[in-house]
Amino acid sequence: MVTEKLVEKIIETKYEDFPEELILHAKKSLLNWLGVTIGAIQHESIDILLEVADELESSSQATILGKNIKKDLLFATLINGTSSHIFDFDDTHLDTIHHPSGPIAPVVFALGETKNLPTKDLLRAFILGCEVELRISNAVYPSHYKLGYHITSSAGVFGAAVAAGILLDLNKEQMTYALGLAGTQSFGLREMFGTMTKPFHPGKAAQNGLLSALLAKKGFTSSKQVLEAKRGFANVLAPQHGLSKVLVNWGEVYELQKNAFKPYACGIVLHPAIDACIELSKYAKPEEVQEIELQVNPYVLELTGKETPETGLEGKFSIYHTGAIAFIDKDASEEQYSDVKVSSPETISLRKKIKPIVDETTSEEKVVAILRKTDGSVYQVKIDHATGSLENPMTQEMLNKKFSKLCKNILTDVQITSTIEAVLDLDKLNSIHAVIDHINHTKVFNN
Amino acid sequence: MVTEKLVEKIIETKYEDFPEELILHAKKSLLNWLGVTIGAIQHESIDILLEVADELESSSQATILGKNIKKDLLFATLINGTSSHIFDFDDTHLDTIHHPSGPIAPVVFALGETKNLPTKDLLRAFILGCEVELRISNAVYPSHYKLGYHITSSAGVFGAAVAAGILLDLNKEQMTYALGLAGTQSFGLREMFGTMTKPFHPGKAAQNGLLSALLAKKGFTSSKQVLEAKRGFANVLAPQHGLSKVLVNWGEVYELQKNAFKPYACGIVLHPAIDACIELSKYAKPEEVQEIELQVNPYVLELTGKETPETGLEGKFSIYHTGAIAFIDKDASEEQYSDVKVSSPETISLRKKIKPIVDETTSEEKVVAILRKTDGSVYQVKIDHATGSLENPMTQEMLNKKFSKLCKNILTDVQITSTIEAVLDLDKLNSIHAVIDHINHTKVFNN
Repeated sequence: MVTEKLVEKIIETKYEDFPEELILHAKKSLLNWLGVTIGAIQHESIDILLEVADELESSSQATILGKNIKKDLLFATLINGTSSHIFDFDDTHLDTIHHPSGPIAPVVFALGETKNLPTKDLLRAFILGCEVELRISNAVYPSHYKLGYHITSSAGVFGAAVAAGILLDLNKEQMTYALGLAGTQSFGLREMFGTMTKPFHPGKAAQNGLLSALLAKKGFTSSKQVLEAKRGFANVLAPQHGLSKVLVNWGEVYELQKNAFKPYACGIVLHPAIDACIELSKYAKPEEVQEIELQVNPYVLELTGKETPETGLEGKFSIYHTGAIAFIDKDASEEQYSDVKVSSPETISLRKKIKPIVDETTSEEKVVAILRKTDGSVYQVKIDHATGSLENPMTQEMLNKKFSKLCKNILTDVQITSTIEAVLDLDKLNSIHAVIDHINHTKVFNN
Repeated sequence: MVTEKLVEKIIETKYEDFPEELILHAKKSLLNWLGVTIGAIQHESIDILLEVADELESSSQATILGKNIKKDLLFATLINGTSSHIFDFDDTHLDTIHHPSGPIAPVVFALGETKNLPTKDLLRAFILGCEVELRISNAVYPSHYKLGYHITSSAGVFGAAVAAGILLDLNKEQMTYALGLAGTQSFGLREMFGTMTKPFHPGKAAQNGLLSALLAKKGFTSSKQVLEAKRGFANVLAPQHGLSKVLVNWGEVYELQKNAFKPYACGIVLHPAIDACIELSKYAKPEEVQEIELQVNPYVLELTGKETPETGLEGKFSIYHTGAIAFIDKDASEEQYSDVKVSSPETISLRKKIKPIVDETTSEEKVVAILRKTDGSVYQVKIDHATGSLENPMTQEMLNKKFSKLCKNILTDVQITSTIEAVLDLDKLNSIHAVIDHINHTKVFNN
């Protein structure tokens, strides 16, 4: 029953039903997604995907964002979706550790561009796609995630099918079949974390979801009860689940509004410490530091206890490196996690002075940081809610700056500004071509 | 460790290691696969897949078998793999209810054609692809299947990656990554049975496996322990498993030799009854039948108890219809399960005289059938092992006849004969083009 009712809700829900702040949050989510996607588009794993697309003689239908080239709809969604998760710097629905935009935005961009659809339809598809994947995530979390599924792809595929289904104007039966096809293609093992295959997951979920909707549109039949059936998604992929969560408070509570953006390019557990070190850097130069004590929950040190990281990626799992670069650079973006930065004498010198202290009474969201200077003076700061948390969200200015930093090697300053403006005005534009044209135009200047 | 060792075994195992009878069984498997694939290629679901491929402007790389058109490698594997499972008339590894050729043969045909590879390489890829998927199936069966996975796709994706990996000449590390990529894309819910999405599973598994190998070839990284990792395939997708079965007796016992072919286009539980009714038809004309009593295991009637089927598909789940058409037509092929045949007065008249009797002491593989004629005479036959079982396999002649019946509306008689010959001579041919040319050539005459 839940699958059938969900389809009814999807089809009933119109753009006009959405509150203003939800539409704004959707646009912020799209901007954040676009930044992390363009930012990683020169990564080796994207080159490999593009080579395979070339080997398949993939047609030119939808833009690879930040590349000024096109591939067919399925490859474009795969590649853009993969790129968005490479830096692990994308958005997070904190309740379920799900990165909602990853599987949905690629479908919205690719179909929006190819079919030249109205932007309000795109926003409706994006919002409802996110809503469906997150509500399904709520229903199977945490048992599904703990068992070993990368929930961003395994639940994301449903959202991708819904977004595509809306943009392809599926009727009730077709949408039901699209969900069936998506659910049977649900996939993604957490074992892949730390390899190129992790970011491949949201891309492939986007692709599988889009394929599901394309097939359903033409009458390909599937199960009508994929979520709740005895051998359906929930019973097979989640040891415990509560499918009532899929529909509860529909239209009143929007899960997408619980979507948080990362200001820093590392795991969220380090974000309070980064805020604290940036704050403390006001009171000393690096060479004046005797010691920076960080009082953290034991779990934080368990995840980020690497004392002598050797690569940028390892730096993301080091509270020592992270504290040092936050203090020196007043930032913790991709740039601060380069291999060069990790090996620089200045960073290494300061990271030896970072002293994490485990404190059972401190929650993971908090940190107390104490700066002791060589001159004997002492400064203390306390962070209760790090920047980027729901209680202390990134401001629009911060989001714009994040986008700018991610894209600066790929887009010109002028085009960065105009792309940001276009995304934030998306509901007032005629089509997504206005956004894509800014991105592609820039490439003409740059390359 | 098991993933690493499996990769070593795959790479070490050469064509020359295979016993003659295994190569013959591989060729029979390919012939059987080719027949069911070509036979179903005009099905509506294939038309839909082709329309979507056209919408994607898929390039012309590999043949859609029986259609004389080409699509890109990924679509060709998807479409040919889907077609092979539409009639549910493909091969079966009885120990695990896995249909081994479905995910593997499409990869072998597509890459063999596109890259013009030596046929011994194709046979090696096919045999090892089947071996790997079936051994992985052995390791997770029955808990994985009972939980709700369609094992043909969920385990088949590994075999498809291996077959593609062999044909793309992957080294050890690349093959390991191909398995990782395949494993994370494992999918397929049994809830889809009875819809077009069921046959989509082996096709998509073939496609996912091929994509995995294409990516791995170019350096896309993945897990090195996808089978055994804490959050790897076995632990996440199978409540109980025994991974030692993946490697046990490697090179001594070939799982592919346990591959059985169906002589009849319905579930295996009905096959003994079909044999019996064909045998009994020697003793009476339909109008002379008073009653045909079929003593069967309760499970047989549970699965096939539909007394008044209305469609051909429902006929496959009716011991009444099946017994009647076996007696009248001395066969139970796709033709006997047409909607027309199900509604014909002759079939309906005889099916009312089929009397199944449940007998707990009769095993599922057996049947006792008693014909009572209107003249009072009585004939009895007993089937212990139905045609197509491992104990009573289909002869080469039967396989050829099955191929012929499946393809008769698509290929000419001459071309059917030459295709059969070419497949059975595959190891002596230079390339698979010889087979494909026969199939395509025919189309020129037919369409």
